[in-house]
Amino acid sequence: MRATMMDVPLTVAQILERAGRLFPDTEIVSRRPDKSIHRYRHAELHGRALALAAALQKAGVKQGEPVATLMWNHAVHLEAYFGIPCAGGVLHTLNLRLHPNDLVYIVDHAGPRTLIIDDVLLPLLAEFRDRVRLDRVIVVNWGKGALPEGAVDYEDFIAAGAAGYVPPELDETDAAGLCYTSGTTGKPKGVVYSHRAIVLHSLAISLPDVLSISHRSAVMPVVPMFHANAWGEPFACAMMGAKQVFPGAHLDAVNLLDLWNDEGVTLVSGVPTVWLAVVRALDENPGRWPRVKGLRALIGGAAAPEGLLRALIKHGIDPAHGWGMTEITPVGAIHSFKRKLDTLPPDARIAHLAKQGLPLPLVETRVVNDSGEAPWDGASVGELQVRGPFVAARYHNQPDSGDRWTSDGWFKTGDVVAMDADGYIKLSDRTKDLIKSGGEWISSVELENAIMGHPAVAEAAVIAVAHPRWDERPLAAVALKPGNSLSLEDLRAYLAPHFAKWWLPDAIAIVDQIPRTSTGKFQKSVLRERFKDWTWDIPTR
Amino acid sequence: MRATMMDVPLTVAQILERAGRLFPDTEIVSRRPDKSIHRYRHAELHGRALALAAALQKAGVKQGEPVATLMWNHAVHLEAYFGIPCAGGVLHTLNLRLHPNDLVYIVDHAGPRTLIIDDVLLPLLAEFRDRVRLDRVIVVNWGKGALPEGAVDYEDFIAAGAAGYVPPELDETDAAGLCYTSGTTGKPKGVVYSHRAIVLHSLAISLPDVLSISHRSAVMPVVPMFHANAWGEPFACAMMGAKQVFPGAHLDAVNLLDLWNDEGVTLVSGVPTVWLAVVRALDENPGRWPRVKGLRALIGGAAAPEGLLRALIKHGIDPAHGWGMTEITPVGAIHSFKRKLDTLPPDARIAHLAKQGLPLPLVETRVVNDSGEAPWDGASVGELQVRGPFVAARYHNQPDSGDRWTSDGWFKTGDVVAMDADGYIKLSDRTKDLIKSGGEWISSVELENAIMGHPAVAEAAVIAVAHPRWDERPLAAVALKPGNSLSLEDLRAYLAPHFAKWWLPDAIAIVDQIPRTSTGKFQKSVLRERFKDWTWDIPTR
Repeated sequence: MRATMMDVPLTVAQILERAGRLFPDTEIVSRRPDKSIHRYRHAELHGRALALAAALQKAGVKQGEPVATLMWNHAVHLEAYFGIPCAGGVLHTLNLRLHPNDLVYIVDHAGPRTLIIDDVLLPLLAEFRDRVRLDRVIVVNWGKGALPEGAVDYEDFIAAGAAGYVPPELDETDAAGLCYTSGTTGKPKGVVYSHRAIVLHSLAISLPDVLSISHRSAVMPVVPMFHANAWGEPFACAMMGAKQVFPGAHLDAVNLLDLWNDEGVTLVSGVPTVWLAVVRALDENPGRWPRVKGLRALIGGAAAPEGLLRALIKHGIDPAHGWGMTEITPVGAIHSFKRKLDTLPPDARIAHLAKQGLPLPLVETRVVNDSGEAPWDGASVGELQVRGPFVAARYHNQPDSGDRWTSDGWFKTGDVVAMDADGYIKLSDRTKDLIKSGGEWISSVELENAIMGHPAVAEAAVIAVAHPRWDERPLAAVALKPGNSLSLEDLRAYLAPHFAKWWLPDAIAIVDQIPRTSTGKFQKSVLRERFKDWTWDIPTR
Repeated sequence: MRATMMDVPLTVAQILERAGRLFPDTEIVSRRPDKSIHRYRHAELHGRALALAAALQKAGVKQGEPVATLMWNHAVHLEAYFGIPCAGGVLHTLNLRLHPNDLVYIVDHAGPRTLIIDDVLLPLLAEFRDRVRLDRVIVVNWGKGALPEGAVDYEDFIAAGAAGYVPPELDETDAAGLCYTSGTTGKPKGVVYSHRAIVLHSLAISLPDVLSISHRSAVMPVVPMFHANAWGEPFACAMMGAKQVFPGAHLDAVNLLDLWNDEGVTLVSGVPTVWLAVVRALDENPGRWPRVKGLRALIGGAAAPEGLLRALIKHGIDPAHGWGMTEITPVGAIHSFKRKLDTLPPDARIAHLAKQGLPLPLVETRVVNDSGEAPWDGASVGELQVRGPFVAARYHNQPDSGDRWTSDGWFKTGDVVAMDADGYIKLSDRTKDLIKSGGEWISSVELENAIMGHPAVAEAAVIAVAHPRWDERPLAAVALKPGNSLSLEDLRAYLAPHFAKWWLPDAIAIVDQIPRTSTGKFQKSVLRERFKDWTWDIPTR
């Protein structure tokens, strides 16, 4: 007996059609470079995205051809999110925070011939323009300035409109998007998303227990559209009919809070550093943003310290941890409380919020260590491995990266986790950030989150430093709040009630700030390099 | 450039794995035939469903082979929902309300060799057992009675457990489920659901704007599991980790309300007649079921009259219309209010609730009439046509049914609708129930919904009767509340403010009750047959 269902592929084009036809009035709000507000509706997004698609087709973009973007979060970037895949092309978002050398590597590796760029980012392009081959540069000319020689104004490019647009014959496994991982080591690696992966991911992240995206939502991805699809929200919001609010280049807390308050934003996603700044602004301006109460704060990209969670809750913001990777389109897990946890006392509730949550539907998970698959007991740790229709099976044109997949086809995330009996993931560390001391493992993330609870500490990272007797021992790099000091003895005394004695850092290094990757994560590789010749001045244990 | 995503099929087996691993504590509650409560958890559902799968494999069930069920809504039927597809078989639910002749036709047409049946339904099987070929009858022996010769006890059948279960190599387009449409005319027709269709439908109906199914939900499908997959809820609830509560054979309002109240049910789906009975019980027992306040009531299968919507709201129940068909796995649209409608005054809000809502993601819609595609203006009517990955492309083994699909591959629903500019569908009638009077169309559904608002009327159906001058004219078949009467003049006067004069029925026929199909819908074909020789005793217009 054979199924009698239609063979209709899952495509990004369907998402755009739905947005334009069922939710034509949904607003898209963007902050321009000059801080003024740009505002239009899905009906215009739909028309302009198809106009872009038609223009790209006329310009000769072929099916499966990458088209690069170098833009902040705003409505025109959203048009590219849809227009490029609707033309049959591959949306290739370039990370504007990368070093020009990395951008040259990526453009050379992926091979886009067309780039759509914000005028305010032309100086960045100028730094590497002569080292890449780009046949066509299309400029979103916010400032109405003069364009570089040979460049085209975006509005002129799409002016002919959607007339002549020919929907490509798409298979759902065809390429639609391309992101490069901003790895802390090694060269960036490309992940090519299929139409199918984007549609399935959009459905999964919109579910009530995930991001709960509705046509009644107003969503701001602070997370950049040039990084991991802005966690997939632009696609999901369009599919669900949700309003989107984009901060453009203005990512300081006051600008963000103004937009959330003015536009009635209900869901914001960002990395912990964004939320730390938001809490500071709320502390300093009591009562200034009344409509921010009730906002759902999705925190991902790195683990949020408990102190941050507490501060958000104090301000009436509802925080939830998430976990994802560029290789997972990108969301893998989001925290939501099961009913059985409703009776947890407040402190235990905060502690539970420190978990990264439940895996999404369609994301299969397992935890593997030297003894095989670890039990889901909340204590046994191992590497998190995942499998699913929106998980990468390989990197683009990177034959030497097979060690990231197991022989039975699971993706090795490199994250060390414990899973509890209820299916909640708790990130303990990156495999490469674990500290091996006397044959046992110490989690650098747990230590640094605890250290960041100390009142004198602004931020902290813990790294392994080679040790003649114990193999490795933890060193705490600490940035202090202005006017504070902290000794190693004080730090150890502060941590002692919460950790085994042999976990306590054996050294403290006061630093101005913790170095970060282009996406705001702690860049421990820089610290490891800086302290690689550390000499231990006290006997340990 | 090719996508780098994993090729992981969407399967029902994944849903079961997720239910068992991430939500092992989720409760499944069922009312047994003796009215006592059966209660267990996902962990047991998971183990027992795989035990059933293993037993079916050992018994020789092949991939793609249908396995029939004849059961009420309860935990064992849920085990079959998962165990049969996990064995590689096709869950073939038989509708216990059909005439034995139809059951014989269906079993003969689909060809299952195995049947799983409730002991309380053995008398129904006895009516047609000797007219079908079934090699194996497995009895869920609630009453611990003696089994018919050759039958196996379900518990004995699965006793060996999941040991030896071999996950079949499944393609996502392989068959997983089979339902026959309970058509009001013609022979039943089979729709074969793929694994892919069921997974996509589960994701789509769980979204916040659709049924909003969460691990915090408690869901009762009153709609039978033997009809259109109980609207897909058993699969979706398992995927999301939602508690499920099943009424077994006890579908009277008091039993339902007791269960909703005792088990904290948050979402119930049923046809209008169920809700009419619930309103009566609530009217008669004020305060008896306090926890029912806030319940979401999904109403589908037929249009709900405004009076019913008002009565539900009065009792603190939150009603929403839905629309679906066996051919759509089955949900096609659900009502939810866009933010722009929040300012509607109460009466306009009720009127809006009478719409069937917004099409689900992945369900493409268009409205087609003699002039081509109708504009989405809320007024232009035409036949609703749909397309999508969980819409049927044909009927099983039914080569003569091609007229239900357009030449460009859309399914012709047979429903006459108008769509408004916001994408809301308003069902106006079945194409075959429209009344053609003097070259214009009259909607029988709109008339009968209005008639059911008359205080003397229990229920009403309007049909077309041949007329020598006008081609067809409407006749209202009306069942009155006890002790009431209603004349044609009174009825026309009651309707006159709301309809054009030529829409008003020209005849009234008082009947004991409106005949219904096996799924509770008005069976107008019976009325048309009964009144086909009606002679008009008044001049019309």
